[in-house]
Amino acid sequence: MKNILCGSADQTLQTFLESVPCDHSHRRMVQQEIKCGFGLDGVCCRLCSNGPCRISKSRPKGVCGADADTIAARNLLRSVAAGSGCYIHVLENAVKELRQAAISGRPFKGRDTLLRLCSMTEISGDSDKEKALHLANLLLEDIRRPAEEKMVLTEKLAYGMRVQAWLNADLLPGGAKDEIFNAVIKTSTNLNSDPEDMLRQCLRLGISTGIYGLVLVNMINDILMGEPQISFDPVGMQVIDPEYVNVMITGHQHSMFGYLTELLENPAIQKMAEQVGAKGIRLVGCTCVGQDFQARSGLFQDTFCGHAGNNYTSEAVLLTGCIDLVVSEFNCSLPGIEPICKDLGISMICLDDAAKKKGADLISYARTGREDSNIAVLVSAIASYNRRKKADRHNPMKHHGCHEAMTGLTDITLKQALGGTFKPLLEQIRKGTIKGVAAVVGCSNLRAKGHDVFTVELVKKLIAADILVISAGCTCGSLGNCGLMSREAVSKAGPGLSGVCRSLGIPPVLNFGPCLAIGRIECAAAELAAELGVDIPQLPVVVSAPQWLEEQALADGVFALAMGFNVHLGLPPFVTGSPFIMETLGEGIEQITGGKLIIETEIDAAADKIFEVIAEKRRGLKLNG
Amino acid sequence: MKNILCGSADQTLQTFLESVPCDHSHRRMVQQEIKCGFGLDGVCCRLCSNGPCRISKSRPKGVCGADADTIAARNLLRSVAAGSGCYIHVLENAVKELRQAAISGRPFKGRDTLLRLCSMTEISGDSDKEKALHLANLLLEDIRRPAEEKMVLTEKLAYGMRVQAWLNADLLPGGAKDEIFNAVIKTSTNLNSDPEDMLRQCLRLGISTGIYGLVLVNMINDILMGEPQISFDPVGMQVIDPEYVNVMITGHQHSMFGYLTELLENPAIQKMAEQVGAKGIRLVGCTCVGQDFQARSGLFQDTFCGHAGNNYTSEAVLLTGCIDLVVSEFNCSLPGIEPICKDLGISMICLDDAAKKKGADLISYARTGREDSNIAVLVSAIASYNRRKKADRHNPMKHHGCHEAMTGLTDITLKQALGGTFKPLLEQIRKGTIKGVAAVVGCSNLRAKGHDVFTVELVKKLIAADILVISAGCTCGSLGNCGLMSREAVSKAGPGLSGVCRSLGIPPVLNFGPCLAIGRIECAAAELAAELGVDIPQLPVVVSAPQWLEEQALADGVFALAMGFNVHLGLPPFVTGSPFIMETLGEGIEQITGGKLIIETEIDAAADKIFEVIAEKRRGLKLNG
Repeated sequence: MKNILCGSADQTLQTFLESVPCDHSHRRMVQQEIKCGFGLDGVCCRLCSNGPCRISKSRPKGVCGADADTIAARNLLRSVAAGSGCYIHVLENAVKELRQAAISGRPFKGRDTLLRLCSMTEISGDSDKEKALHLANLLLEDIRRPAEEKMVLTEKLAYGMRVQAWLNADLLPGGAKDEIFNAVIKTSTNLNSDPEDMLRQCLRLGISTGIYGLVLVNMINDILMGEPQISFDPVGMQVIDPEYVNVMITGHQHSMFGYLTELLENPAIQKMAEQVGAKGIRLVGCTCVGQDFQARSGLFQDTFCGHAGNNYTSEAVLLTGCIDLVVSEFNCSLPGIEPICKDLGISMICLDDAAKKKGADLISYARTGREDSNIAVLVSAIASYNRRKKADRHNPMKHHGCHEAMTGLTDITLKQALGGTFKPLLEQIRKGTIKGVAAVVGCSNLRAKGHDVFTVELVKKLIAADILVISAGCTCGSLGNCGLMSREAVSKAGPGLSGVCRSLGIPPVLNFGPCLAIGRIECAAAELAAELGVDIPQLPVVVSAPQWLEEQALADGVFALAMGFNVHLGLPPFVTGSPFIMETLGEGIEQITGGKLIIETEIDAAADKIFEVIAEKRRGLKLNG
Repeated sequence: MKNILCGSADQTLQTFLESVPCDHSHRRMVQQEIKCGFGLDGVCCRLCSNGPCRISKSRPKGVCGADADTIAARNLLRSVAAGSGCYIHVLENAVKELRQAAISGRPFKGRDTLLRLCSMTEISGDSDKEKALHLANLLLEDIRRPAEEKMVLTEKLAYGMRVQAWLNADLLPGGAKDEIFNAVIKTSTNLNSDPEDMLRQCLRLGISTGIYGLVLVNMINDILMGEPQISFDPVGMQVIDPEYVNVMITGHQHSMFGYLTELLENPAIQKMAEQVGAKGIRLVGCTCVGQDFQARSGLFQDTFCGHAGNNYTSEAVLLTGCIDLVVSEFNCSLPGIEPICKDLGISMICLDDAAKKKGADLISYARTGREDSNIAVLVSAIASYNRRKKADRHNPMKHHGCHEAMTGLTDITLKQALGGTFKPLLEQIRKGTIKGVAAVVGCSNLRAKGHDVFTVELVKKLIAADILVISAGCTCGSLGNCGLMSREAVSKAGPGLSGVCRSLGIPPVLNFGPCLAIGRIECAAAELAAELGVDIPQLPVVVSAPQWLEEQALADGVFALAMGFNVHLGLPPFVTGSPFIMETLGEGIEQITGGKLIIETEIDAAADKIFEVIAEKRRGLKLNG
């Protein structure tokens, strides 16, 4: 095996991955470097047995007659539908947890959020329990409506001016699951051929993804798990103590681990771990569920050791040799971890059959008793710890990451930190001390200049230009591990931003946690807009997903376009072969939602385009440069 | 443009398509002849931005670590989910029509079917109207259940021994729409990686597709439109009279045309057509909705002129110059018809936004009043007729097709024709006069030896070997047009089969109509099995989809495998790069369902394999050779 890896913004990680003698994603990226141009352009169609058909100048249509626009639109819509489906599935399971908690009388750790959400949605009840039950039932009813019935919570939760824009353009979504279902059939062979109709369906899916899968889901998780609190915690693989039984968690269904964390707080369980010679048993955060736990770290006793890294760090976390069990429940659980677990004797347990991994045991939360299944999980971890010999118990990555990252930021905690109002932030924006805000969010991939390279380098340029960066998703994993979420990072910020950060004691890059928390950023943006009395497209705020990876990111992105943001992507989606889609997302859509897609694959140019958008929005609001 | 076309079993059609100077699918097939091997093998993954990744010996995994089995299984499951979704959508709309009819008091033209279905499903009510309403509500409830709740009608409608086999293997499906939803998210990036779990999900989708999308849907259509009746009608483009206002219909939602046909029977409407100089106004059948109308031809007055051809005949139907309007409502409406309509000034109307065609008007049945929208459809057709000059009103394909095809066969009418029991057929099978039955069904494609070539040639070999052929789908379009469904075709049958056909006055290839009627064939097979007291896999019956085309065909095929049939395909699905899938569908699945997939791309070899399966099943039942 040639020792060629893709680059990484995280040098400690890269050195470690170079040193391990096994196959992993950073090596495979190089092996898979040669890409198919038809696939990249989205003009390969393999929906029927006459195919695959590939569109080129000399062959402008598939056998059936579909052209590049139809083919790319079908491919895109199917991806957005799948991505939206993932979010709605996560929401549905969270709501079922809420309903179950209400029925069984479990206490709600985030009572404030329950009351706030009930007030926003006009839900009443004689008790918290009754309110939660009403809320859960209404939510389940809403996402399960037929497509021809509009969901009722969209209008109650979205920013008023946005709702009006969506109403004007007939974009309010019907039942979320049915809209996804319809999108999937639209994209089958010889059905829909109209790219405009399909892009409209994308926008409807974006809105339901955003309001339900990104905004509501955090609130449900907050009710169940307790609201995030601001804290400063170490991040990276340094958080792993090899003397513990270590359970690595990956996925996005945070509240699915609620019972497990409670069980870990039970002294009898910790005693079991001690009996096999461990200091105890703890969860190790990886991917977004780790980010989410980090955001709530103040709520856990010594049962969560911290966030180790993002999706494309997960193989390295296992290769430290310090992990005893992987518990995964949803996406960002790479197939690449399977052979590593097998080689190192690490057990794997999946909690949701939607994300059943090859070689893993399935302990389905939907089918089994929670208590029993969680005990089974922990017994499996402790048994697996036994295989690790005392001599081997060291963490080769004990210097990886950063000694601190500010965590626990949300629209709520940020506002509290600012004194209960966003006015101080707006004042800085008005004065130009802070030029604007960039939400640098989403995934980590290995293709946009290497692992997290685009994200980290872009963010450095933005903060140097006095643009405050807010992040949510795997981007936080890299920005945290690379030190940009520590207070020392103010030295990298421009003169205006660094002054503000120093006075507030915050870093120039704010960590909102998991990708689901993109919804919290949208809520914060809506508050800024409301404070200014303007609509979202007028704000000097840009969204960038420099290293978007998954179909879910496409659904996120469409939501951001529906919200009216300028959205930068560091890699184009597979639609570049369609003139209609490129024109519509890059320009035409601005007439409908105010949003716009900016595809820019070079870091400097991307920063420049973001600067330009912010300058333009500032001009629009008549703010000085 | 080079005048090179793919071959066709239909020589008159081929000669015509050679003569027209425009682009069409038979030309594009040749242009798109060079295929991508990765796509054909199902080992190209474009789910995430690190891709597209392509699997080969030197690059056995994608960047994320997914191998050929995971990638191909995800691709297959997503296709089966989309295909199943199409069928369930068709069912759901048909059930909504039924509910609407019950509410508005429209008479049920197929009362026998209503009563039979209510008896099978143990539904009671004080009136037909009440029964129909209960039935519709139960059906809608069933397909909208959560995935974790089993649908209740599966067990009531499927063959008892099959239900037991599915129960044993934990394959009974939960709510059909939710199962599809779950399948779609399973196939997104970094979620499910377990090909076995995904193939099981395929089987569950196959069962819900079959019982709901193929069996129940015909019964609902029969209730609304009246039961098929056996008749002998001309088929092919000869049915088109250029002096009429001709409305070509394409799709699969037969009962969506219920109001339209009633309106056509209104003398005032015919009068309108006469006022522009036409003889009247009629529907021209194309694709499966045409097959379905043909099967019910006895029910229409002079408002349906007959079935002109299958999916890849539709461009030619338009190119006759005799069509004034295309009304489409679902799949098999090729994008290739759009530029032809544009060139010839033919209007296009879509009735369902799921299948919105570029350049067409959408008159959504879900959103608009039926009466108004249907009048709009007919006014559009009549206006379009005006553009056709008198001198141009001739049908260049007036000799195309066959002067007769036996139509209207179903499990019910076939049994009636046999004297109210399948015993006479079984007796012939027992004696070996008829060796067995082949259900040659599904689509038409252009790649398996050319347009309908595999289907027609295979069927000739089967009937020559005394195998009775039953057909449903676009296969019927070709078999009818090529004369194999006329009584003269007995001359092509073997000595045993031809004797039986002569004595009964039937052709050796029985026309069950549209692809949805594959469900009727499965019902007939269950009756044969019940009569013999055996399970489906024991029957000397083979299913072949020699020229399957669409994702729906894959869902059909999985149903046939779940039913326990040996299923032949003339082209492999895009899974040949996965050793696990090939082994499981070709062998392993036999242990679970009794079914087996036979991929054979050569006609002679396919016939031999079918002979061998029938011989083996005959041996199993201890019937003489």
